[in-house]
Parts: sequence; C-alpha cells; structure tokens
Amino acid sequence: MVEKRNPIAVQEAVERVMQFAEEGIQETVKLEDSDGRILGEDIVATHAVPPFNKSPYDGFAFRAEDTATGSQENPITFKVTEHISAGKVATQPLQKGEAVRIMTGAKLPEEANCVAMFEICQTFEDQGQEYMSIKRSMNPGDNVNVKGSETEEGTKLVYKGTSINPGVKALLATFGYAYVTVAKRPKVGLFTTGTELLQVEDDLVPGKIRNSNASMVASQIIRAGGEVQFYGTLQDDFATSFEAISKALEEVDLMITTGGVSVGDYDLMPDIYQELGANVLFNKVAMRPGSVTTVASKGDKLLFGLSGNPSACYVGFELFTRPILRSLMGSKQPYPPKIKAYLAADFPKANPFTRFVRSNLYYQDGNVYIQPSGLDKSSVVTSLASANAFMMLPGGTRGYEKGYLIDALLIEVNEGQADTWTF
Amino acid sequence: MVEKRNPIAVQEAVERVMQFAEEGIQETVKLEDSDGRILGEDIVATHAVPPFNKSPYDGFAFRAEDTATGSQENPITFKVTEHISAGKVATQPLQKGEAVRIMTGAKLPEEANCVAMFEICQTFEDQGQEYMSIKRSMNPGDNVNVKGSETEEGTKLVYKGTSINPGVKALLATFGYAYVTVAKRPKVGLFTTGTELLQVEDDLVPGKIRNSNASMVASQIIRAGGEVQFYGTLQDDFATSFEAISKALEEVDLMITTGGVSVGDYDLMPDIYQELGANVLFNKVAMRPGSVTTVASKGDKLLFGLSGNPSACYVGFELFTRPILRSLMGSKQPYPPKIKAYLAADFPKANPFTRFVRSNLYYQDGNVYIQPSGLDKSSVVTSLASANAFMMLPGGTRGYEKGYLIDALLIEVNEGQADTWTF
Repeated sequence: MVEKRNPIAVQEAVERVMQFAEEGIQETVKLEDSDGRILGEDIVATHAVPPFNKSPYDGFAFRAEDTATGSQENPITFKVTEHISAGKVATQPLQKGEAVRIMTGAKLPEEANCVAMFEICQTFEDQGQEYMSIKRSMNPGDNVNVKGSETEEGTKLVYKGTSINPGVKALLATFGYAYVTVAKRPKVGLFTTGTELLQVEDDLVPGKIRNSNASMVASQIIRAGGEVQFYGTLQDDFATSFEAISKALEEVDLMITTGGVSVGDYDLMPDIYQELGANVLFNKVAMRPGSVTTVASKGDKLLFGLSGNPSACYVGFELFTRPILRSLMGSKQPYPPKIKAYLAADFPKANPFTRFVRSNLYYQDGNVYIQPSGLDKSSVVTSLASANAFMMLPGGTRGYEKGYLIDALLIEVNEGQADTWTF
Repeated sequence: MVEKRNPIAVQEAVERVMQFAEEGIQETVKLEDSDGRILGEDIVATHAVPPFNKSPYDGFAFRAEDTATGSQENPITFKVTEHISAGKVATQPLQKGEAVRIMTGAKLPEEANCVAMFEICQTFEDQGQEYMSIKRSMNPGDNVNVKGSETEEGTKLVYKGTSINPGVKALLATFGYAYVTVAKRPKVGLFTTGTELLQVEDDLVPGKIRNSNASMVASQIIRAGGEVQFYGTLQDDFATSFEAISKALEEVDLMITTGGVSVGDYDLMPDIYQELGANVLFNKVAMRPGSVTTVASKGDKLLFGLSGNPSACYVGFELFTRPILRSLMGSKQPYPPKIKAYLAADFPKANPFTRFVRSNLYYQDGNVYIQPSGLDKSSVVTSLASANAFMMLPGGTRGYEKGYLIDALLIEVNEGQADTWTF
C-alpha cells in the first residue's frame, strides 16, 4: 500500500533540476526600473574616466613649467584669464604666464597641467585685471585627475549575470545606459493543495488551518526576483486539479504546487504528473525536512511539488526552485552561498538524512556563528520568521556539538554563488 | 575667502540626525503587498498551534488504553469507523475498540489520544467492515501534535518594527492577518545639482559628465524601502534652485540634494539653507569620503546635503539618511549592522579622519574577512558596484595591516541593528 521511493542525495537532486537551466528571454528596461534585475550584457566603459583632465580641488590651473623658479623669495605671478566652474570649459588655450580659476570637477584648459589649491595662492587685482601669485614650484600632473586614470575606454566593468544594485546603477548611468538589457522575470505559477486549507481571511473551523504556504512561497518567489501567479487552492479532487494545473502550466515559466506529494490517500500530485505525461526527476530526497519534495518536467517546464509542511516547503523552495529561478533571471551566481560557521549550540539529535535547520547566522569578533532560530519541529512556522540561513548537518549516527565548524547556506542575500554545493 | 567649518565625529552627526526620528504614519496594506514593509503591530497568535490535536503521520488514531495488553502474541483489533483526511473531522466521538484511519494534518477525533503509523498496523475486512489490528501497546500522546504544543493562543510571536520576510508572512497568514498595519514608505525628494551634469541619455561633451548620482541615490532609497521623487538637476543658479527646493520640500518627508555643499564659488546649498531658515545640524564630519556632508532641518523635515562626489554621496546616504529613513518606515533596527572582520589586505594609508572604505566582506573557515572592493579614490564609482560593506578605519597616524580585526558596516542587508555605532 505504501509506495516505495528511492531517496537521492540533495546535490544530485539540485543537479537534475539545474539541467533545465537556460538563458532567460531578454528584454530592455529603463535604467530607473532596473533595481534588482540581472544584467543581460556587460557594462563597458563607453568613455575614459575621467573623460578629461579634471581638477580634484578648487584652485588655479596653469602650466607647471611656469613655476620652475618659484620660491618664497621669488613668487611667480599669473594673469587669471577666466573662471571655470564644473561643466564649463575654457574659451581659449592657456598661454605662458596665464592661469584659470578652476572649480572641483572642471576640465583643465589645453596646456594647463597642474592645479594649485586656493590655500597656497595669493590673489590681487590691478587695473581691473585679476592676478594670482604662488611662492613655490609645481610639477606637471600635480592635483590633476588625468583622463583615463580611473578607467580606460572599452574596459569591461561589470559582467553579464550580475545583480543591479545602487553601485551598478551608478555605472550604468555614467556610461549612458538609459536602457538596460536584462532577462525577463520568470513567471511562477503557484497552487496550494489541501481540503484543510482556509483562506487567510476565514475564521478558524475545527480540523482546518489557514493557508500560510501561499503567502510564504509567493514571498520567496518575490525575494528571488520572480513574478507570482497564484492560482488558488486545489481541493482533493483529481479531475479538477488536473485540469487546473494542466491549463495553468501553459501560462507560466515554472510551476509550484505545495502539498499532495506524499504517499497518503489524498496525495494527488503523483497521479497528476503521470496524467500530464511529466517526467519525474525525483520524488524523494535524502534530507529533512522536505524528503517528499518532487520535481517533474513537462517539455522544458519544471513542476516543483513542494511539501505541504511549511518548513519543508520553505527549504524545498530555497534549495531547488530558487537556483533555477535565478538562472532564468540571468544570474551567474544562482545558488545560495555556502559558508562555514561555528555551531553556537549543541545539536544532539542524530539523523540518517542530511538535515537543513532554519537558523540565525551572526558575527562575533571576526567569527561567524550559527544556531537554530527556533524549535525544529518541521511544522513550526515561527522559526522561519527570523531565519537568515540554514545549517546543513550531514546525516549520521551522532549529533553535533557546540563549536563544530559546519556548513551553512545563506538565504537572505542577493548575490549567490556560481557553483552548486558539495557536502 | 574659504569658510572655516568645524568637523564633528560621525557618531555625533548620526545622533543629531536621529533626534528627528519619529513614528511614521501608519497604513494598512494587503498581506500580499506587504513584502519588505515593516510591521506596525506585534503578530499575536490568535489561536493555539496546532489549533487541535493533530496527526503528524498517516495512520490510525484510537484510545491508547485499548492497547494496554497488546503484544506480538496478543494483537488488539479495532473497528475502523471512518476515514479522516486533513481538513475533515470525525462525525462521531470514538468509542472503546474503535479506530479511525487518519491522514497527516487531520484532527484526532474526541477520545482518540494516539496515532499508529500504517507501517505497524494490519488491516483487513470482514463482512464489509474494515478492521485494523496492532501487535503492541501505545501510550497516550504517541504521535500526536498536541493542541498548543508549538504556540499558545495569545503569544506574541514577532514584534512591531520587524521587516516582513517570507517567514513573517507565513505567520501573518496563519493567524488571519489578511491586512497588515505598517508604516508608510517615506517619500524622499531628490535633487542633483551641478551645471556639469548631463542626463544619462545625453552624448558626452567636453567638461561634462553624466549624472550618476541620481540613479545611484534613487536605488539606495529604494533599497532602504523609501519612495523616490526625483525633481531633476538644478543648475548653478540660486533663485531657481531655492524656489524648486522650497516648493518640493512641502511634498516630501525627507529631502536629499547631491552636490553644492562644499565651499566652492558655485556651491549654493549653504545659502539655500540660510534662505529657507533651515537649521544646519552639521556641515562637516570628521570622515573620508563625505566630509562636506551637510544636514539641516526645516520644521520637522530634514534636508540631506550629500556630496556631489559619487562615493562620498553613497557613504553619506548609508550613514546618515538610511537610518532615519528606516526609522520612519517603522524599523526598530535602523542602523547598518556593525561587525568585526579581519582585514584581508594591508591598508597602508594613514588618515587623520575616520575612513569608510567600500569593501567586500567574505567568509572563510568560520572567519569573516574584508578587503577594499576597488581603488579608493573617492571619485571612482566602479568600486561601489561590488561593495557589500564599508570598512571603518579610525583616523590616526598609521595605516592598517592585514590580519587586524577591524570594524565593518554591512550595507546589503534588510535587518539592521537597534543601536547607533560607537567607534
């Protein structure tokens, strides 16, 4: 009566899913709408930075060679020919013995090759003409941000596949990318299943619980950068469930269902995959929680059958759905980063399967620590609220002690890692 | 000619700004629109979790006492009275010698106090009646998720001032919060100043650069959770600039300008603050970059005069604007978290002022490391693209060596810390 399933390793399961990774469909968005999207093209310096010899200070620009004999005893006097504010350019090339008053960020005139700050210059007027004198010599290049000294034209600055954050956006603006090529946000369909599920606004009735997975998974999809298309809750009825999923699958890039993947009397998903002609990539993973997580493919689309248990559902999304969703969005670092952290509390419970424990990662004196964010009953949702990482505890016959250096996956970060994990 | 300004410490500057922190205006949003907002109310368990005695497995539920004499030699047989799937409830209380077939998540019938998994039960039919037998004894409570065992009704689960993430959203759904009280997103006005600024779509012309600060700061405002109202670039003209800022100030909660706060000939902001009758909280901070950062108040509104230099502007926003913006959004942890990290590269340059270096924080073998993300010329924008933290290097007469344990501020995280930093 109970179907026998063969569990596969987490890494193997992730790899089976990621075989379906492909370049998402590209689109062009306005720069101001690009936050959180992923670059579909390299950012190339379309000009040198700075694009001209620039003054880093307020002062006077002139030819350094004119001050060769300058000293306390021998001040050199310049005729101030014009004032140049940032954004303005000199109207004439500088001649020997001439200086311009120049503001921070302004372009040095032709022939000028140094800037003296106001603090070391004397100014005076004679017959309506402005003069400046300086009691020292200067070298060519003194206080000049030389054209191209920061970046040469043509340099690749940020690579395709990188998330657009405020710093990237500044670069895009600098180099004239008023429109940016990005991959489209994948459209992710979402069904919850289960006759026990009430809607959030419903009053509680005996035997039922409110649907928390719909809100939670929708939020995980949004956090990962996808678009949510929620199709509602399926009742435990095969025909209507099959028809709804079958139809919805045509409208989305990925499909997620929660619940119904176990081997209980009312678990419809296995039969639905069969009726769809979907290829089941796996239906049991050697992990806790979420061992019943099932992924199937129908053509080039994936159907994620996440557990109905909130914690298992949460973990299943982050491990299996997020990486491919980020890939479709164009990310070259789609996997949650795996780092090492010190276990901050004993975790005595041994488990034959790899265990993913919702945890808090924190820092102290240059070290990274991790501890469970709450009780670890898989039905407890409260521990998800403050989790920013998963501990990954390999299966075995012993528990884990405080101070062990263990693996952790970061789940509240924008950038991930490029390669899948090994553990 | 050069106005003398007195620098104040970073911490003092932050404290002067945060004296203007106040509860933002509350509003109610739909649960599905609440991602990234901040709770304006505690989440209280409106019912016990689980809300009823629940089966954690597929199996049979019955009265444990009926199995008191059960053993390999003495199997106990139960009459199976009904099948209960999740969401359904028993139609009648259980009698002695009766069991129900029960699915994961379903409510135990009255009088049932344990669940035996399918694996340890034999089932058979006799004259159309279903029976189950078990060859062992069970204890009351075996395999039962007891009502209230995870959370008691009335427990405060998540506190006001916490960011709404997928886990928090799951809790809100569980407890029937179809609408959530949050503080409104602050509306942040933004002007850039400078005759040298071209728009992003403009071709480069001599002496000018494209406006990167507008895109960058807008993105920082969005990342912090605010709404951006961009008013364009002000030319170096007092009357029009004053009028534009004065008018815009009435439409926003906070105002940011970039540029024009230095003491150059064309720096208009000091005169604009004066004409507005604004109270300058500070106009020089003992830090690099961003020493000219100026903050002024007009009534209960703050005007942030960030430097026109991209890096200084970026740092000024994260240090001074972000905390109060997050406070207005309702956060109780508005400050970027300060942690200790090991310096991964020598930083030989001594500086009299506290230095904030755009950096990459990374992990290795349980330790946290930090290194500059690029050149540290304050005009280099490229290093902002990959920065996820600032090093904070206190001013002094010496540089810093690889391996030193130094302070770092995390800038790409949702949750901050509750208290301002000391350094």
